Amino acid sequence: MGQPLLNPITLFISNPCTSSLSIFIICILGFYTLHYPHASPSPSNSQTALIFRRSFLSSATNATVAAYLRALTQHPHLAGTKPSLDTIHYVQSHFSGLGLQTHTARYNALLSYPLHSSLSAHFSNGSHVDIPLAEPGLSHDGGGGGGVVQPYHAYSPSGSARAKVVFVNHGSGEDYRALEALGVSVSGCVVIARRGGDLPRGEAIRNAEKNGALAVLLYTEGDRRFNQGFERGVVMNGVGDPLTPGWGGVDGAERLDLEDPEVLKRFPNIPSMPLSAEAAGTILGTLGGAGAPPEWRAGVGRVGPGPTVLNFTYQGEKKMVTIQNVFAVIKGLEEPDRYVLLGNHRDAWTYGAVDPNSGTAALLDIARRYALLIHSGWNPRRTIILCSWDAEEFGMIGSTEWVEQNLVNLGSKAVAYLNVDCAAQGPGFFVGATPQLDNLILEVTKKVKDPDLEGSTVYENWLTKNGIIDIQRLSGVDSDFASFVQHAGVPSIDIYYGRDFPVYHTAFDSYDWMRKFGDPLFHRHVAVAGIWGLIALHLADDSILPFNYFSYVDQLKHYKDVLSHLLDGSILLDPLTTAIEEFAYAAKEAEDEAQKLREEESTSEFVMLKKRALNDRLMLAERGFLDSDGLEGRQWFKHLVYGPPSDHGSKLFFFPGVADAMNQAKSTKTGQGQAKLRHEIWRVARAIQRAARSLRGEIY
Amino acid sequence: MGQPLLNPITLFISNPCTSSLSIFIICILGFYTLHYPHASPSPSNSQTALIFRRSFLSSATNATVAAYLRALTQHPHLAGTKPSLDTIHYVQSHFSGLGLQTHTARYNALLSYPLHSSLSAHFSNGSHVDIPLAEPGLSHDGGGGGGVVQPYHAYSPSGSARAKVVFVNHGSGEDYRALEALGVSVSGCVVIARRGGDLPRGEAIRNAEKNGALAVLLYTEGDRRFNQGFERGVVMNGVGDPLTPGWGGVDGAERLDLEDPEVLKRFPNIPSMPLSAEAAGTILGTLGGAGAPPEWRAGVGRVGPGPTVLNFTYQGEKKMVTIQNVFAVIKGLEEPDRYVLLGNHRDAWTYGAVDPNSGTAALLDIARRYALLIHSGWNPRRTIILCSWDAEEFGMIGSTEWVEQNLVNLGSKAVAYLNVDCAAQGPGFFVGATPQLDNLILEVTKKVKDPDLEGSTVYENWLTKNGIIDIQRLSGVDSDFASFVQHAGVPSIDIYYGRDFPVYHTAFDSYDWMRKFGDPLFHRHVAVAGIWGLIALHLADDSILPFNYFSYVDQLKHYKDVLSHLLDGSILLDPLTTAIEEFAYAAKEAEDEAQKLREEESTSEFVMLKKRALNDRLMLAERGFLDSDGLEGRQWFKHLVYGPPSDHGSKLFFFPGVADAMNQAKSTKTGQGQAKLRHEIWRVARAIQRAARSLRGEIY
Repeated sequence: MGQPLLNPITLFISNPCTSSLSIFIICILGFYTLHYPHASPSPSNSQTALIFRRSFLSSATNATVAAYLRALTQHPHLAGTKPSLDTIHYVQSHFSGLGLQTHTARYNALLSYPLHSSLSAHFSNGSHVDIPLAEPGLSHDGGGGGGVVQPYHAYSPSGSARAKVVFVNHGSGEDYRALEALGVSVSGCVVIARRGGDLPRGEAIRNAEKNGALAVLLYTEGDRRFNQGFERGVVMNGVGDPLTPGWGGVDGAERLDLEDPEVLKRFPNIPSMPLSAEAAGTILGTLGGAGAPPEWRAGVGRVGPGPTVLNFTYQGEKKMVTIQNVFAVIKGLEEPDRYVLLGNHRDAWTYGAVDPNSGTAALLDIARRYALLIHSGWNPRRTIILCSWDAEEFGMIGSTEWVEQNLVNLGSKAVAYLNVDCAAQGPGFFVGATPQLDNLILEVTKKVKDPDLEGSTVYENWLTKNGIIDIQRLSGVDSDFASFVQHAGVPSIDIYYGRDFPVYHTAFDSYDWMRKFGDPLFHRHVAVAGIWGLIALHLADDSILPFNYFSYVDQLKHYKDVLSHLLDGSILLDPLTTAIEEFAYAAKEAEDEAQKLREEESTSEFVMLKKRALNDRLMLAERGFLDSDGLEGRQWFKHLVYGPPSDHGSKLFFFPGVADAMNQAKSTKTGQGQAKLRHEIWRVARAIQRAARSLRGEIY
Repeated sequence: MGQPLLNPITLFISNPCTSSLSIFIICILGFYTLHYPHASPSPSNSQTALIFRRSFLSSATNATVAAYLRALTQHPHLAGTKPSLDTIHYVQSHFSGLGLQTHTARYNALLSYPLHSSLSAHFSNGSHVDIPLAEPGLSHDGGGGGGVVQPYHAYSPSGSARAKVVFVNHGSGEDYRALEALGVSVSGCVVIARRGGDLPRGEAIRNAEKNGALAVLLYTEGDRRFNQGFERGVVMNGVGDPLTPGWGGVDGAERLDLEDPEVLKRFPNIPSMPLSAEAAGTILGTLGGAGAPPEWRAGVGRVGPGPTVLNFTYQGEKKMVTIQNVFAVIKGLEEPDRYVLLGNHRDAWTYGAVDPNSGTAALLDIARRYALLIHSGWNPRRTIILCSWDAEEFGMIGSTEWVEQNLVNLGSKAVAYLNVDCAAQGPGFFVGATPQLDNLILEVTKKVKDPDLEGSTVYENWLTKNGIIDIQRLSGVDSDFASFVQHAGVPSIDIYYGRDFPVYHTAFDSYDWMRKFGDPLFHRHVAVAGIWGLIALHLADDSILPFNYFSYVDQLKHYKDVLSHLLDGSILLDPLTTAIEEFAYAAKEAEDEAQKLREEESTSEFVMLKKRALNDRLMLAERGFLDSDGLEGRQWFKHLVYGPPSDHGSKLFFFPGVADAMNQAKSTKTGQGQAKLRHEIWRVARAIQRAARSLRGEIY
């Protein structure tokens, strides 16, 4: 793409006065460290820590972030391809150039690439048209030759179909029921669906398959300026390398056979492909048959079948490739065995200016700013690890393999995982978190300047715009936090600016788009880096971990109320009530103890071990929500509060096991279904009790 | 039984000189503590710790142990019965009388009691005889009325049968194959088996059921003086309350239905009962049919079927009862959140003088001796918990419910579990352990006087008698260590003197038997208490945990060699080799670090946190052997190195998943069987790798 460096970029420094002061203090600290190497200024001392946090904030610049993004997005860099290797080296040399200790973790994983595809529409008048299957004006290939990868669905089987077309709206279960009511069957047809309704790609394909369709085309509506874009994406179920479910796919590891039922069940059985909104319009405008249900508001008149016939071919290959995660480690001085992890993926479907390299640029800038702190004498109390994941787009493979490989150590030592994927998609601050981190998020957003409203903090603008502070939860499997939360039970955060950006997974997700639309001044990048890096500084340096479980208690109470409303008294929720009470009691106890210990400045053995013991409880409470048996039929998912429901139509975006049981109970209508549901509610209650016990830390 | 107190009992004090010196030093320490309450002499100081250990050893007396045992065994005290409550109060007031903090944990569990049984033998000459079903000269009842419980198999279904009898040796799979070779079928018959060949009771019943038998009678051969004894016992599969599999059966907890398949699968479907050796002789002497295979060496001429016909009836009831574990807690001063657990069960089939109250008496004496240390100023570094379990005889129910209830906290905080069940069965020292504790056992047995050889230590006599030091492993499910090792991955030890005592589970297991045969001078009790208590002192006070993983490495190498020999090259064991190498490397690294830190006397924050971090690694490495998916079909068993194989005929008493897969591969003889076996070997390799990673403590 080769864009010239955006010039001039305004240096975005918080406040010249504070910043000169900070620099002065840092010099003093640096001198002190140089001359008293063993008496390093411990950031556990709250005054010192405050100075380091201030100097972190004051070292922000948008110019550096922009430069990183530009370098990362020079070429498309799909996971497993040659240009992707260049980004590995870029990130690695950035880290090591800053003097940070770097590592890589390599895995051999089964990825999926396109070989050939074609699509033609044959109209009732006998004419036909070849539908373009790539963005215009760019070189496309299988992803390895330097061009943009041709649009495809990773892990789609190869196949072809020549059949009438049906429009199925989003392709949800409800949509198929609406079609049935119209007397329309998709059996033996090619279906076209538009992405939306939060329905995951894979589920749209599975629904079509269940209803007898031969192939699926998915298009994305949105900004008309980009309606020639194709949304690439993965259609495999679950996360991680399908050949190494539950363990790290390192060199020489056990690998399941491609024909193993455990592997096969993760792939769809009918081929699919993305379609541009423009091409979809061409086809859908020619449909006859029944009229579309008005509630679809689809801008489509009739749904078919036909009379238009599509001739569809897709050929792809699944292939073992090497993927690499890159790490920078800043070893903790007092507690090197406690980890604060900041993670972002590096691989992109195309240029990845938004997804994911706006996050990568922020991560690299945090590295730069942390390195400055180190030069001025800072050593974090706990270890900070910056993680650059590979192959996220193929199902969070890089992060998942690493989490699986390091599960025992993460389970006992990871304080928190902080994720940023698409850092800058547009305006508006969004954040998701496990609830014990809510408070910290609020505190930190009060310290960071809003990128879009002069004179305001992120917190103020966020509150003003929404009226309330809305922190999402992490039940989805749409970024690298999935393994950390849902498999390992590590408290996590996910941060981004803007949402639903129109060039998502298309060839238009470029530095140029970012400069023109996403974040022209790179202030949103800077805000994300500030929040992300500052949260990590607190988690790494605060002598008592800044976790607050009251928020978790409130959240659980709310979930219980929602569930109670949905069940309408058909099942008593007493076990949940009791468990939440126990959890509330534990939260209060922990908070009281935390307040006392925060004020305790002594570094005697007794006090230090007391603090460590309390921190262990704060850190490990989240693990209590894990159940070693996992969700039924999806054992990998161990978290009983946050995880995806099996059926996306579920009204519960928490308690995934309960959500599944509710669905099943609806379809079976037998006493057995109700018994199962009661059992799942018990399992959640016990998980909450475990978390409470873990937080209280008493076994007798 | 009301035996007069054995009199005179020789006071068993190690050495008058050392002991006066110790008492003097203790007085000094006591004074010091009294006057400088905040400058408590830390046992982390190795000199001080040594003095406390010496004074622990010198405070041993056999008189106290004997008195405790006598009090505990006054009445039979079957779990869930009234007299059992008295032992709860006895133990609890002993603990609290010593000034120790006590707790109880109550569970409602499904136990099983007999109501009625009868057995008559009908001979070919037309005569018949009623077989006595209880020990002579004692009052028998359902266990609750103060008498000895009539002989029965807990969880046997009620039922009756009138059929020809067949002798099946131990009733193993091999035995049934031998019968088949003789043309003898047990279908429709009552079988008699003699306990032995390490075959668990439940497995003998299952095998009979599989072969079509209607009922099973089990007798125990042994000392002819006690051949009127009946071996009571449990015939349920698995451990813990069958209604609360995987969670603690506290008041108000979820309980599965009695008809739930998960519950039903744990019970046998045909009735069974114990038989005395005398009664068995009466019946077996009248059998005709085929001659017994000579390799059975059974002292039985012919195996039947018949002509003798047995008329058998058993009626029992399963019943919810309250059980109680009792705890004494000695809170650690520096690290109260690290637990060293000493456990023994309290419930007995009859009087329980050997099983289990010889262990209880030792536990109570340890409590007494620890209380003395506390009075002289000792505070353990870590928390010590003395555990008195209930309902072990019904399937380790008390300990299992507690472990399940406290799994998250035990998982992150339990240093070790030290079990003693039948402390004194006769002469000869026996010990089982997870291998990282081998070294500590050796060191401690070198410090304790041998109870049977004047002037020798336990270690010396042990070595002399056996030629080698043989430490068993904990794959069995025959005492309360099962949940700790096999479900929670806590390093564990099991200690006892003597084995295979002839009055096992009979009404003759009384104080009188102990005084006459088991341990007339109570020196074996004293030796067990000394070893047990001293091991705990090291684990509680040593600043670096006395774990040594070299022994684990050697053990794993040995297992690999055995497996390799059995597989005879049919499967490459490279994954195991690599994993063991990784584990060996980690063991070396940890040991080097431990040696360095042991010498480090500083108590600076850095050093303390370094020690704590290393201790965490040493403690948590065992958890790495757990696999959250557990053994196939027996998910509760999470440990992949130690656990019972499904089929007791297996030659592997380690790697239980591999053992099961080998058995299945033998019977299927297909490629699938081999693939499964390879997969199980991989799982073990990954478990060893996890342990290695946990021990190394690095995640990058």
